[in-house]
Amino acid sequence: MTVVCLPDERAYQLVGDVPGVRTLLWDGSVAPPPGIASTEFLVGSYTRGPLAVDQFSLMPRLRVVQVLSAGVDAWLDVVPPGVALCNGRGVHGLSTAELAVALVLAQLRDIPRYARQQAGEVWLSGEKESLCDKRVLIVGAGDIGGHVKDVLNALGATVTLVGRSARAGIAGFAQLPALLPDQDVVVLAVPLTEQTRGLVDERFLARMKDQAILVNVGRGPTVVTEALLAALESGRLRAGLDVTDPEPLPRGHPLWHAPNLLLTPHVGGGSSGWDRRGYRLVRAQLERFMSGQQLANMVDVRRS
Amino acid sequence: MTVVCLPDERAYQLVGDVPGVRTLLWDGSVAPPPGIASTEFLVGSYTRGPLAVDQFSLMPRLRVVQVLSAGVDAWLDVVPPGVALCNGRGVHGLSTAELAVALVLAQLRDIPRYARQQAGEVWLSGEKESLCDKRVLIVGAGDIGGHVKDVLNALGATVTLVGRSARAGIAGFAQLPALLPDQDVVVLAVPLTEQTRGLVDERFLARMKDQAILVNVGRGPTVVTEALLAALESGRLRAGLDVTDPEPLPRGHPLWHAPNLLLTPHVGGGSSGWDRRGYRLVRAQLERFMSGQQLANMVDVRRS
Repeated sequence: MTVVCLPDERAYQLVGDVPGVRTLLWDGSVAPPPGIASTEFLVGSYTRGPLAVDQFSLMPRLRVVQVLSAGVDAWLDVVPPGVALCNGRGVHGLSTAELAVALVLAQLRDIPRYARQQAGEVWLSGEKESLCDKRVLIVGAGDIGGHVKDVLNALGATVTLVGRSARAGIAGFAQLPALLPDQDVVVLAVPLTEQTRGLVDERFLARMKDQAILVNVGRGPTVVTEALLAALESGRLRAGLDVTDPEPLPRGHPLWHAPNLLLTPHVGGGSSGWDRRGYRLVRAQLERFMSGQQLANMVDVRRS
Repeated sequence: MTVVCLPDERAYQLVGDVPGVRTLLWDGSVAPPPGIASTEFLVGSYTRGPLAVDQFSLMPRLRVVQVLSAGVDAWLDVVPPGVALCNGRGVHGLSTAELAVALVLAQLRDIPRYARQQAGEVWLSGEKESLCDKRVLIVGAGDIGGHVKDVLNALGATVTLVGRSARAGIAGFAQLPALLPDQDVVVLAVPLTEQTRGLVDERFLARMKDQAILVNVGRGPTVVTEALLAALESGRLRAGLDVTDPEPLPRGHPLWHAPNLLLTPHVGGGSSGWDRRGYRLVRAQLERFMSGQQLANMVDVRRS
């Protein structure tokens, strides 16, 4: 029997029995179950995050770690060398893309202002903008970025996708300086890597158009917080952030009250139905693993 | 020469010269210009709304009234019998559809709550919902409804369009009672007619699912305000309204502070670029008129 470790009972219910597999349940929050040393395939807990390095050391036969989030930055340092790491691409993409669209539209259509007006019983429209004559740049050409593009195209926007390297229909990061000055909206949907940490710095923001909207649904440290804060406080840019650096944002942090900023508390993924989608992926991965097929969603980040 | 009356200088700039046409400028706010009696084609002001009946009586040769809004209810009673009335279908559709999507997403993803939390420096997520496992009913199968359907489909929702009469791919109003109980979101995008006035009454709302979201971007009187207010105050339904009855909503009206309601002040259409799209339509209509072709966007409402 191949030993597979799932995080909890709910996971086991949704994955079901897989021929040839013996299932253990452990999310790292309690003492490890008997037999943990035989684990070959581990599914990480979506809510608790990574195991500790010494917990991994209990599983010398481990070959695969499957996580359920799109971003794997929290796992990169702890998963042992030689163990395949697979992400949750496709599980949260549509939900996170939807939040990106919600933040873009809320800022463009002035929803926070109207909510304040409503509280004050004020019926007053302002300048009315819509996406149908706007240019949007999406940084991140993965699952999330692709969905955002489809939706914004349906709303009439002119959308450009940017990925790490240029390929058919996708511009490369190297073209960002040339592309930024024309964009009304810039959506960030990239994982946290050496290349994306601090990508959106003072120079990046300075190239953006006046009154352009920056939306981040990826990872907080992609944006240099102080640089964004300065651009918001000067009134030059608008933003919608579902992720921040630091996160959670502590009380008293100046970002809370930056003008023209809409903040949501990292709620892009994990929305209704995520677990069914997530464990459908896990089941498919287990079936691949048991029949010796290539796994999907392998993270191609070089790890030491 | 055929005399055409445009509302203002901006309209004339955008329409440009049309061979065989002499242009007058008048929006009804000042004394009529010399030659008004020869007007055959009148373009209504989008911002001012309809002329008065006695102003129409100054134009005995009038054959066409072209308005720039999708809804023509304000014009129906004043345009003289025998004069063709054409609406602005296509001018604001995408913008209004976009606002409908913005209201759906703001309510589903709890944007007003997060904006309040932000003001109070609170980082706290709640139940996370997304459209990808939701059913949406769109009442109104015209330009606006069609665009809303495309966008919500791209977000993974299961969408049903309802029109006055059932036809391929579109359910009829008669099927509403059977369809309503299954829907997580109901979007209203219908013009105000005898059939739609008061359509969303206590019985309609009672058939809706608990916690379902009602969005109205059409006309306020489609919804019976008191009935909606009761459903909101009981906590059973959520809503996003861009139009109300009465409108503008007066200070002190209980709708301002109804729970789980997001209000915007009739800002669906008229967004950036509407005038270019609007006067592109006017120019095309004038060219049809001058060459004796059938006009587009004729309103097929029987008028007395």
